[in-house]
Amino acid sequence: SRNYAISVIPGDGIGKEVMPEGIRVLERAASLYGFSIDQKWQDFACCDYYAKHGQMMPDDWKAQIGKPDAIFFGAVGWPDTVPDHISLWGSLLQFRREYDQYVNLRPVRLMPGVPCPLVGREPGDIDFWVVRENTEGEYSSVGGKMFPGTDREIVIQETVMTRHGTDRVLRYAFELAATRDRKHVTSATKSNGIAITMPWWDERVEEMAKHYPSVTHDKYHIDILTAQFVLNPDRFDVVVASNLFGDILSDLGPACTGTIGVAPSGNINPDRTAPSLFEPVHGSAPDIAGKGVANPVGQIWSAAMMLEHLGEADAAAAIMRAVETVLAEPGLRTGDLKGKANTEQCGRAIADAL
Amino acid sequence: SRNYAISVIPGDGIGKEVMPEGIRVLERAASLYGFSIDQKWQDFACCDYYAKHGQMMPDDWKAQIGKPDAIFFGAVGWPDTVPDHISLWGSLLQFRREYDQYVNLRPVRLMPGVPCPLVGREPGDIDFWVVRENTEGEYSSVGGKMFPGTDREIVIQETVMTRHGTDRVLRYAFELAATRDRKHVTSATKSNGIAITMPWWDERVEEMAKHYPSVTHDKYHIDILTAQFVLNPDRFDVVVASNLFGDILSDLGPACTGTIGVAPSGNINPDRTAPSLFEPVHGSAPDIAGKGVANPVGQIWSAAMMLEHLGEADAAAAIMRAVETVLAEPGLRTGDLKGKANTEQCGRAIADAL
Ligand SMILES: CC(C)[C@H](C(=O)O)[C@@H](O)C(=O)O
Ligand SMILES: CC(C)[C@H](C(=O)O)[C@@H](O)C(=O)O
Repeated sequence: SRNYAISVIPGDGIGKEVMPEGIRVLERAASLYGFSIDQKWQDFACCDYYAKHGQMMPDDWKAQIGKPDAIFFGAVGWPDTVPDHISLWGSLLQFRREYDQYVNLRPVRLMPGVPCPLVGREPGDIDFWVVRENTEGEYSSVGGKMFPGTDREIVIQETVMTRHGTDRVLRYAFELAATRDRKHVTSATKSNGIAITMPWWDERVEEMAKHYPSVTHDKYHIDILTAQFVLNPDRFDVVVASNLFGDILSDLGPACTGTIGVAPSGNINPDRTAPSLFEPVHGSAPDIAGKGVANPVGQIWSAAMMLEHLGEADAAAAIMRAVETVLAEPGLRTGDLKGKANTEQCGRAIADAL
Repeated sequence: SRNYAISVIPGDGIGKEVMPEGIRVLERAASLYGFSIDQKWQDFACCDYYAKHGQMMPDDWKAQIGKPDAIFFGAVGWPDTVPDHISLWGSLLQFRREYDQYVNLRPVRLMPGVPCPLVGREPGDIDFWVVRENTEGEYSSVGGKMFPGTDREIVIQETVMTRHGTDRVLRYAFELAATRDRKHVTSATKSNGIAITMPWWDERVEEMAKHYPSVTHDKYHIDILTAQFVLNPDRFDVVVASNLFGDILSDLGPACTGTIGVAPSGNINPDRTAPSLFEPVHGSAPDIAGKGVANPVGQIWSAAMMLEHLGEADAAAAIMRAVETVLAEPGLRTGDLKGKANTEQCGRAIADAL
């Protein structure tokens, strides 16, 4: 029988509250679909490991995590005690890089029961993927300060893009588009203003496109692209973007479909040389943490993406059907969606709907 | 009597079509409010000067422009013949830098007659300013390629922020907020991911805030900030951002209020050591150029911002009232707003409504 080793990192704040619901649904899916999961929990978070040891993870974190089939991640961050750039670069962003999870994959899909902030859009109208470069680009650790603390202070940070890193994420986007009905890739650029890296990005897109004659493509500058997400979200199929632009688009997209509270993401190593990591798009949300009211759907949808990645497509599809059933029921969804359920009730409802 | 020297640069595409309407309204305002304008037109554009001389502007462009009181700009760009990064860095972006127009000021305001893509928002609900740093930051010309044309290719571009450049735009934002009812500044950051420049930006915001005890402030990471523009646009008063983040937010904001077709901007040198430049947010729009259907409101609203800057506040306010009157009339607004007028008819209607 199929057995999967899963590293579980709930993290901080509502990460701790939604993770048990993600696990609940995973376990239910396992028993229904004839596989099993071995969980290894880790306390790598601001309010756990960091609070005790002053760093986000032990030096031998890779050995402690071992060689799982995937990592199931909640949300890390507690800015009152650890600045975000310390906590994120010490965990999430480190995983993305060290496990070479070079694709960040996020669906933008209007779901039943999620009130859409855009006029006249119905479930089915908006359904696309954001493919974000996830290891390099604007998220660089190269740079520094000159004349610090003086009026002449200058701060420099380098965006670093490589052909290796760019081509592989573009390839993933074109491959994904080739499997879809509309077979269309939209590239996010800013080659009119960011005049060194982005014109080069455009060239790489054109080169890659040549290998996919059945896939159409176009490009938008990031400024007008964000406008198009609001004005014409039905226009998109696969949107490929650099690390920063993808970060922006994959929060904006879910907002255009109602809430980032239900959005999932996969940090994927397509070559499977290291584990991929699945996490909700939302963060640790200190403002609502501890109340048990967080929406667990982002975590549960991430579980579905993880199962899809592990080859359990039927179980993944079943989870998505259960999520849609529960979202359509005001009594079963959480308060952020004008529902009546708390985190646990919503999670149980999805597990039961399976 | 008050006389203003205005450098007029219509540019390419629809820039050429909306500029005459901007001028029409300016001239009408001048005759009604007792001032005059001296126009000096320049053909600095892809399809004009560049087509003849292979560069966007003559070497002595500063001398040719002289010392106007302001620059009234249409839109530059014609990607079929000149790559955008060449045309923009050879004109618009050069003005911003060489005239030290360090503030890019753009209103986000829901206007009557402009259909809002967001559910349940009415004119009056959304009314804030984006204050964008306009000379440095991510729009840098420092960087380059290593191993070009090979598989090892690496492309680097440096973001450069200075205390001088950052503090002055933050000061402008806090000063602006202090004049408004809500007295609130929102800073766009990304200090969790862009971990060298943006944590420093956050520090500068905190420092500047100390000088404005009557102004409240908060910060959002750019990803969730774009989501908030869609979900809670009524939350904002003055949003201050780096060059790139401000670029994105000032297209997204107008899209959330219906269209970037009516949005204006000021590229302002608050110290008045050189002329400021006023232009619509939209570009040259090659797809609709030549048809006479472009919406002239962005250009006309830019004229109002220019008059405000020149001290003609009454005339500026009158133009805005005329714009609102015309936008509310389907017969007078343009087709992009489901109206029946062409560019010239809409421009004439606004001049007449004055
Ligand atoms: C045309 C382009 C270079 C410019 C910018 O990015 O600044 C435009 O988008 C703007 O916002 O004025
Ligand atoms: C928390 C933060 C560093 C992270 C990012 O910017 O990548 C988050 O916004 C995301 O999108 O996963």
